[in-house]
Amino acid sequence: MTQEIPVIYTEASFSHRPQYEVFRGEKEPHAETVERVENILQALRASGFTHINTTTIDGMPWIEQVHDAAYLDFLKQTSDNVDASVADKGVKPGDVKAIYPSVHPYVPNPRATNPLAERGKYMFDMYTPIMQGTYEVAVESAACAVAGAKLLKDGEKQVYALTRPPGHHAEEAMMGGYCYINNAAVAAQYLRSAGADRVAIFDFDIHHGNGTQNIFYGRDDVFFASIHASPDIKFPFYTGYEDEHGEGDGAGFNYNIPLPEGIDDATYDVHVAKVLKRIRDFHPNYLVVSAGFDTHAKDPIGAFRLTTDYFGKLGKDIASLEFPTLTVQEGGYATDVLGENVVSYLKGFRER
Amino acid sequence: MTQEIPVIYTEASFSHRPQYEVFRGEKEPHAETVERVENILQALRASGFTHINTTTIDGMPWIEQVHDAAYLDFLKQTSDNVDASVADKGVKPGDVKAIYPSVHPYVPNPRATNPLAERGKYMFDMYTPIMQGTYEVAVESAACAVAGAKLLKDGEKQVYALTRPPGHHAEEAMMGGYCYINNAAVAAQYLRSAGADRVAIFDFDIHHGNGTQNIFYGRDDVFFASIHASPDIKFPFYTGYEDEHGEGDGAGFNYNIPLPEGIDDATYDVHVAKVLKRIRDFHPNYLVVSAGFDTHAKDPIGAFRLTTDYFGKLGKDIASLEFPTLTVQEGGYATDVLGENVVSYLKGFRER
Repeated sequence: MTQEIPVIYTEASFSHRPQYEVFRGEKEPHAETVERVENILQALRASGFTHINTTTIDGMPWIEQVHDAAYLDFLKQTSDNVDASVADKGVKPGDVKAIYPSVHPYVPNPRATNPLAERGKYMFDMYTPIMQGTYEVAVESAACAVAGAKLLKDGEKQVYALTRPPGHHAEEAMMGGYCYINNAAVAAQYLRSAGADRVAIFDFDIHHGNGTQNIFYGRDDVFFASIHASPDIKFPFYTGYEDEHGEGDGAGFNYNIPLPEGIDDATYDVHVAKVLKRIRDFHPNYLVVSAGFDTHAKDPIGAFRLTTDYFGKLGKDIASLEFPTLTVQEGGYATDVLGENVVSYLKGFRER
Repeated sequence: MTQEIPVIYTEASFSHRPQYEVFRGEKEPHAETVERVENILQALRASGFTHINTTTIDGMPWIEQVHDAAYLDFLKQTSDNVDASVADKGVKPGDVKAIYPSVHPYVPNPRATNPLAERGKYMFDMYTPIMQGTYEVAVESAACAVAGAKLLKDGEKQVYALTRPPGHHAEEAMMGGYCYINNAAVAAQYLRSAGADRVAIFDFDIHHGNGTQNIFYGRDDVFFASIHASPDIKFPFYTGYEDEHGEGDGAGFNYNIPLPEGIDDATYDVHVAKVLKRIRDFHPNYLVVSAGFDTHAKDPIGAFRLTTDYFGKLGKDIASLEFPTLTVQEGGYATDVLGENVVSYLKGFRER
């Protein structure tokens, strides 16, 4: 296969500017920056990718199929009018630029009727603020993934969707980890609606894709596999253990490989082979890849030691499965090498 | 009864200085200040109270009976060595003065092995930091309540324990709402161990006593009643509804009266009468009162309009039950009138 891989991105990404993270009670610079998209697009253009465009399609039908209606409503209402959502005593319109939670539920299935309570119910960390317009941007990012999936349906073999904000930490009814709407899950759901019996998702971001796992945990039509840093050492901390196999109809259709820190190319590759075997055995009509490049040695919030060259081998090995494959961008925060890593990975596909 | 009510406080209160609250992602001044204790002690002394002392007894046996061992261990380990608990890259000893959570669990019964994950598991809000020594201070506050309970056991009819930090938001395995160890629950548990068959707890803080409810929710030996601002409008948001009656053996032994904002003396008094009737019907050997004066009209984080005089009537009505009564200090943040309110309440007892 030497055909060029089409790339889809969305202009909305450039207006998404999370203000800061609250880490240990202190404001810290936000890692999920707009420079990430700029660096990737620059590297793609410099490497001769020319089929880059922004044509998306309406993703709402599939967004609504994978996310809780009340959750989407909270996200939309809050981000449509941040000022109204903080109509507290002494706060003037424009004073508050970003919404963070303050109080979290400690009862199962909390009734949360107050905006402050809804924040805790739907936002699981202090890293993922809602700004004015965040909902629209997140919807556009998911639409970008759906547009990529549609290209597969229309006959493309490989597509890259440069989704931002990322999506794999967004659960059915919960945002966190810089994610609001689960782009990979929405794309998989679209492919199911478009006639696929089975869709596999391979998540190689260094952080467990808790959101994607959550959404498909009870289903046997979408197989989810993830290789990631153990929840003992890395965000999101509460999921990603080996014994999370799925439940009900989904039992056996969730596959987690948590790893300790310091993993190198050779060790990682052994685990990739196990995942690819499981995916092959599942016989999916399509494969969706949640691609996080925060496994790279230089990543500021990572823990593994993968090289840029290794991502080429990873792309080549995934392509060898010969399933039509949509790669959706997730994490990767070493901005100076992020674009190179994406290019190395996508060129790996073309080496097939 | 004209005998003077003994007052117990602890010097440890004066070393408890929460740095700040994180509200909406911003640092805000902390409402639970050391001036609260200073104002109360000053008002008591100015009003002729002379039986004020700091003699406490070891409360650990009862602390360990009402709180989860792993939770206490987390609180102790973290507060014994804040520096060690934040041994992150680039953080120097002394850089971090207070520990706040960043990521909260979104799965039931999370396995939390990482310190960052434990914070989210055990700390339900951004208002309740752990500083160096917080555990010791919280233990001393609970010991103060136990010492008060011991005076009842030894024959006193009315005792006031000036506990700080407060306790009623601390659950079996969760801190929040400025509370770490549940002073009222520990005192009630002590009284049970000391031979009482039944203990009633009346919580009149404006915030629902979620912690006390949680600790005794499955028990019929401790009756818990609370009048508070509805969870729809006030912290802790997720509990305090009318339909929370207790479960298992505890069914029928939990009584919540959530009220809208703006409640005045006359309306409040009607609800107090209902609570006192339920307590009388329970025939407790002892009564523990979780006394929050944030129901006062001037309270900066309150929502009701009670007057200082009304607290006198409240004390008088509680005294009319003629159960030996330990009053444990909870909230109240209008520092300039807090002492007056406490004095008014305690003088009410003496009017009997």
